[in-house]
Amino acid sequence: MKTTSADATINTQPRAPEPAKTGTGTRVIDLGDSVTIGGLRVAIMAGPCAIETVDQLQAVADSVKKTGASILRGGVYKMRTAPQSFQGLGEKAFKMAADICRKTGLKFVTEAVDEQSLDLVDQHADMIQIGTRNMHNSALLKRAGKCKKPVLLKRGFSATIEEFLLAADYILQGGNTRVILCERGIRTFNTYSRYTLDLNLVPALRERTPLPVMVDVSHGTGKRTMVPPMALAAIACGADGVMMEVHHAPDEALSDGAQSLAIEDFETLVPRMRSVAEAIGRTL
Amino acid sequence: MKTTSADATINTQPRAPEPAKTGTGTRVIDLGDSVTIGGLRVAIMAGPCAIETVDQLQAVADSVKKTGASILRGGVYKMRTAPQSFQGLGEKAFKMAADICRKTGLKFVTEAVDEQSLDLVDQHADMIQIGTRNMHNSALLKRAGKCKKPVLLKRGFSATIEEFLLAADYILQGGNTRVILCERGIRTFNTYSRYTLDLNLVPALRERTPLPVMVDVSHGTGKRTMVPPMALAAIACGADGVMMEVHHAPDEALSDGAQSLAIEDFETLVPRMRSVAEAIGRTL
Amino acid sequence: MKTTSADATINTQPRAPEPAKTGTGTRVIDLGDSVTIGGLRVAIMAGPCAIETVDQLQAVADSVKKTGASILRGGVYKMRTAPQSFQGLGEKAFKMAADICRKTGLKFVTEAVDEQSLDLVDQHADMIQIGTRNMHNSALLKRAGKCKKPVLLKRGFSATIEEFLLAADYILQGGNTRVILCERGIRTFNTYSRYTLDLNLVPALRERTPLPVMVDVSHGTGKRTMVPPMALAAIACGADGVMMEVHHAPDEALSDGAQSLAIEDFETLVPRMRSVAEAIGRTL
Amino acid sequence: MKTTSADATINTQPRAPEPAKTGTGTRVIDLGDSVTIGGLRVAIMAGPCAIETVDQLQAVADSVKKTGASILRGGVYKMRTAPQSFQGLGEKAFKMAADICRKTGLKFVTEAVDEQSLDLVDQHADMIQIGTRNMHNSALLKRAGKCKKPVLLKRGFSATIEEFLLAADYILQGGNTRVILCERGIRTFNTYSRYTLDLNLVPALRERTPLPVMVDVSHGTGKRTMVPPMALAAIACGADGVMMEVHHAPDEALSDGAQSLAIEDFETLVPRMRSVAEAIGRTL
Repeated sequence: MKTTSADATINTQPRAPEPAKTGTGTRVIDLGDSVTIGGLRVAIMAGPCAIETVDQLQAVADSVKKTGASILRGGVYKMRTAPQSFQGLGEKAFKMAADICRKTGLKFVTEAVDEQSLDLVDQHADMIQIGTRNMHNSALLKRAGKCKKPVLLKRGFSATIEEFLLAADYILQGGNTRVILCERGIRTFNTYSRYTLDLNLVPALRERTPLPVMVDVSHGTGKRTMVPPMALAAIACGADGVMMEVHHAPDEALSDGAQSLAIEDFETLVPRMRSVAEAIGRTL
Repeated sequence: MKTTSADATINTQPRAPEPAKTGTGTRVIDLGDSVTIGGLRVAIMAGPCAIETVDQLQAVADSVKKTGASILRGGVYKMRTAPQSFQGLGEKAFKMAADICRKTGLKFVTEAVDEQSLDLVDQHADMIQIGTRNMHNSALLKRAGKCKKPVLLKRGFSATIEEFLLAADYILQGGNTRVILCERGIRTFNTYSRYTLDLNLVPALRERTPLPVMVDVSHGTGKRTMVPPMALAAIACGADGVMMEVHHAPDEALSDGAQSLAIEDFETLVPRMRSVAEAIGRTL
Repeated sequence: MKTTSADATINTQPRAPEPAKTGTGTRVIDLGDSVTIGGLRVAIMAGPCAIETVDQLQAVADSVKKTGASILRGGVYKMRTAPQSFQGLGEKAFKMAADICRKTGLKFVTEAVDEQSLDLVDQHADMIQIGTRNMHNSALLKRAGKCKKPVLLKRGFSATIEEFLLAADYILQGGNTRVILCERGIRTFNTYSRYTLDLNLVPALRERTPLPVMVDVSHGTGKRTMVPPMALAAIACGADGVMMEVHHAPDEALSDGAQSLAIEDFETLVPRMRSVAEAIGRTL
Repeated sequence: MKTTSADATINTQPRAPEPAKTGTGTRVIDLGDSVTIGGLRVAIMAGPCAIETVDQLQAVADSVKKTGASILRGGVYKMRTAPQSFQGLGEKAFKMAADICRKTGLKFVTEAVDEQSLDLVDQHADMIQIGTRNMHNSALLKRAGKCKKPVLLKRGFSATIEEFLLAADYILQGGNTRVILCERGIRTFNTYSRYTLDLNLVPALRERTPLPVMVDVSHGTGKRTMVPPMALAAIACGADGVMMEVHHAPDEALSDGAQSLAIEDFETLVPRMRSVAEAIGRTL
C-alpha cells in the first residue's frame, strides 16, 4: 500500500541512529492537567484488565499514583472471544473510575467495543481505546474520527504496518488528530508466549508517522514474568508509553490474570523503567 | 517440551521480576583473556557480514577495540540462499582474522557451514557459530558437541523454543557444555522488517536454561536504522550479549549491506548501550 | 477449545476416512426454491467482488445460471483497508440484485459491514455474509444471531479454529441456527499468494461441527490462475460449497480484479468442478 | 530474489486455467521399470515413517503393490528434533528394502540426513529424499547435485517459494536434473494441525518450473483423519504425486504414528484417489 494521508505519514528517514531523541519530533497528545503522551516523558498506563470492584480499582490507582505513573486503565466493556466469558461491568464502572480519578488526579482510558459504547467512552473517559479485534472495523474507526477524546488505537494482532497506519487514517480523516498507536503483540507460530511482541515496530513507526507509539507489554507477552523485561525493552527502543495490566490479586482476576502484575511487582518495576528512560535521555 | 537434558534446562521460575540481575545465575563462558559471555558484563560482537579484505576487517576491528567491545565477527564461509551469491573468502580469511586479533586482543567468532568447515573453525577461531539454517542439522550439531571451542547457536528462523533447546541438547550431550543461544529474528507475516525480532525469547530462555542468551539485531531487523534501538532493547530485556554487523562502507558490502551499521554509527551507539546496561545494573 | 455451545460442536470422530460422504451428517441450510447448502450437492457462489453496474451484474448472473450454479454474490457495501478505496454502491445495489435474482431464480448473498448494513442485508438479501475483518466483532455477531436470514461467516484471516467456532457460537446463541462457515485464507509468511488457503480446516471443521463448510478460493489465493485448481481441491477435500469472484472484465474491476475469473474461465471451470464432485460421490 | 537458473524456472504464464492438463509440460522423471513421476499418471509413495522390521515393511509393501501404487517410502535414517528420539535402523534397513522391492517390483525412496548417508542412499535407493530440515543445507544440496539418483526435495517448513526454487537450483547446477519438489506443510499460527498444508503452492510452482510437484499429506496435516481428504485435494489441484505414511499398526509406530494411515484405510483411499485423478483427466 503506497498511499496514506499526509497526516499519518512523514518522509522516511534513511538514517535515524538516535533513538534517545525519539521523544522529540512526535506529536504530543495532551490529556489535560499536564498529562501528555508523545513528548520526552514516557507515559505509563496501568490498571486491571477489567474493572471488577471499587476496592480493586482503588488499590491499583493508589499504586499508579504513588509510583508517579499518570494514566489508569481498566475495562468497562470487554470484547471476549467466547460468549460465555465475563463481558465487563458496563456503565456503572464509569462512575467508579470517575470518582477515583477525581481523587487521585489520574487520567482514565478504557476500550470502546462497539458504536454504542464508543459514545459512552467518549463522554466518560479521558482517552478512548480501540482494541485489536476492532482495528479492521472501519465503521467504528470512522465514528472515532468524530469523537472529541484522543484515541489509543491498538494494532490488529495480524495487521501489517500499512494496515495499521491506514486504520489510523480512518480516524484522522474524520477530524480527530489525537491518535496514539499501540503495538500489542502479533500472532506467530510461537506458543511459549501468548503473542509475539513486535518491538521492531516502534522504530519502524517512528520513521513513518509523527503519531506517538505505545507498547502493551501484558498482551504482548501473556506471562507475568515476561512483563518487566519487556517493559524495559519497550522504553529502550523508543516507545512513548507502556501499557500493562496490574491487579491487586492477579490469581483471582476475572480475566487475564496470568499476564497481570501484582501491585508490589509493579512498584518495583517503575523505578527501573525510570532508570532506563533516563539512560536514553527521557523522563518518566 | 517433554524431555531435555538436565544440562540444558532448569526449573521454571513462576515469578522472576528482576531482569536487572539476569546476569547472575547464568553459565559464564570464558573465551580467555578475560573475555566472557554470561556474566554481569554484556558482550558485544561486531564485524562485517563477510570478511572481504584486510583493510575492511582492520577498520572494523579498530573500532570494536576502541569502543570497548571484545569480540570480532566476520564470515569466512557464507551459507547463501542462492548458489550464485558470494560464498565467502574461505580459509585465507582465517589468517587475516588471526593477525588482526593478535594485534588488537579481540576474540574471533565465525560460522561453520558444514562438517568440513566446522573442523577448521574449531581450529582457527575462538568461538564457533552455527547459523540459523543449520539449527535443525543434527549431524552438524552432534559434531559440534565434540569440538573444543564454545558454540554460538543461532535460533532457526522458525524454530520453537523447544526445538531451540533440543538443538542445544545435541551439542551439550556430545560433551561441549559451552553453548551460547542467540535469537536472530523469526519469520512472520511482517514484510517491513527482514525478520521479526522475538525479544520475548530472552526472558523465556532465562526461565528455562542457564545458558547465556544473545541477540543478533542485524538479522533480526534487516534495516540499519532499526539496529540501534533494538540493540538497546536487547540489553534492557536482559540479553547477555548483542551481535551486529558493522562495515566500513555498508553500501558497498558484498552481503547484507542494508542491515550493516557504518563504523561511526557503531561508535555512537556503544556508549548508549553502556548507559542502558548500567541502568539495569550491568556493565559493558 | 474448552467450551462451545452444544449447538456448534459434536464429538470428535477419531477416524473418519470417508470424506466422499461428508455431505451427509452436516446441517442442511435451506435458502428456498430448492437452493440448499450442506447436503450432497456442492453449492457454488459466484459474482463480482463489488456490484458496479446492472450490466456487469446481469452478465455474471447469466453465466452463473447457465452453468447450473445457484447463488449470486456481489458486494453492496465494501469494507476496505484504506479510507480512499471504493466503498461500494450501497443501497441502490440491492434493487439491481433483487431484479436480477427474480428473473434468474438465483439467490443473493452480500456482506454486512456494520450494524446498520446488517439490518438492510437481512431485509434485502437471501443470505448475510459476515466478513473476515468482522469475525472478531462480537457486537455484530450477536446482532446477526437475531437476524432471520442464514449467515455466511468468514474466518478471520488469523483466527484459530477455536476462535472461529466461538464466533459462530455468538450467532447460534442468539437463536439463528443457520450458520455456514467459510475458510478464506490465512495470513502467513508467504507472499506469492495473497493469503494461504488452509484447506486442512475443511476436514478439521467436519470433525468438530455439523455446520456446513465453504471455501472462498478467490481471497484464499489472490491470483486468478490459482482459482481453478483450488476450487477443485476444495471440493475434493469435502467442502459443501465454493465461493469465487467472477467479473465480465476482470482487468477493469474496481476491486480485487487480480483474483477475479473471467466469465469464460468460470464457464470452463464449473463442469470440471462437477466432475470432481461426482468422483467423490456428490453432485453440483 | 529475482534470479534463478534457467533450468529451474520457466516464464510465468499469465493465465493457465487448465489444471487437468498439468501433467503435460512438466519434466518426466523416470525411475525405471515404467515408474515415472511427472507425466499424466499420478505417483503414490507410501510406507512407514521409519523402517522398523521386515514384517512391517513387507505388510505395507504388499498393500502398496496391491492398490497399484508404485513407490515405497520408509526411513532408514531419521532426523529427529530430540537427541533421545529413535534415529532409524541405519544401513541394515537398506537390505530389507532391497529384498522387498526386488520381490514386489516397487521402487524405494528414503531420506539422506547428512553427507555420509547421502552417498549410501544414492547407492542403495531408487530416489534420494532431502528432508525439510535440510532444504537450507547448501553443502548437502551441492553434493546431491553430483548424485546419480533423482532427488525428492522437500520444502523447508518456513521456506518461501523463491528459497525452495533456489534450493533446487543448488542441485540442478551440480548436474543432477532429476529433481522433484515436495510441499509438506508450513509452520503457521495454527495448532489444530501439525503444519498448514500449502496447496496453493502446487499451481504456483506449476507456473514457475517444469519440475514435478508432489505433496506429503501426512506431515502436512499431522492427523490421520485429515490424510484422505487432503490426498484427494492434492490430486485435484494438480500434484504429480502424493506421499503418505502407512503403517500396519499405527498406534505402535516408533515415530509419527498419529499421522500414519492404517493399511486398510490406505486400501480404501487409493481407489478414491484414482477417481479424482480420472475426473481431472489423469490416471493413477
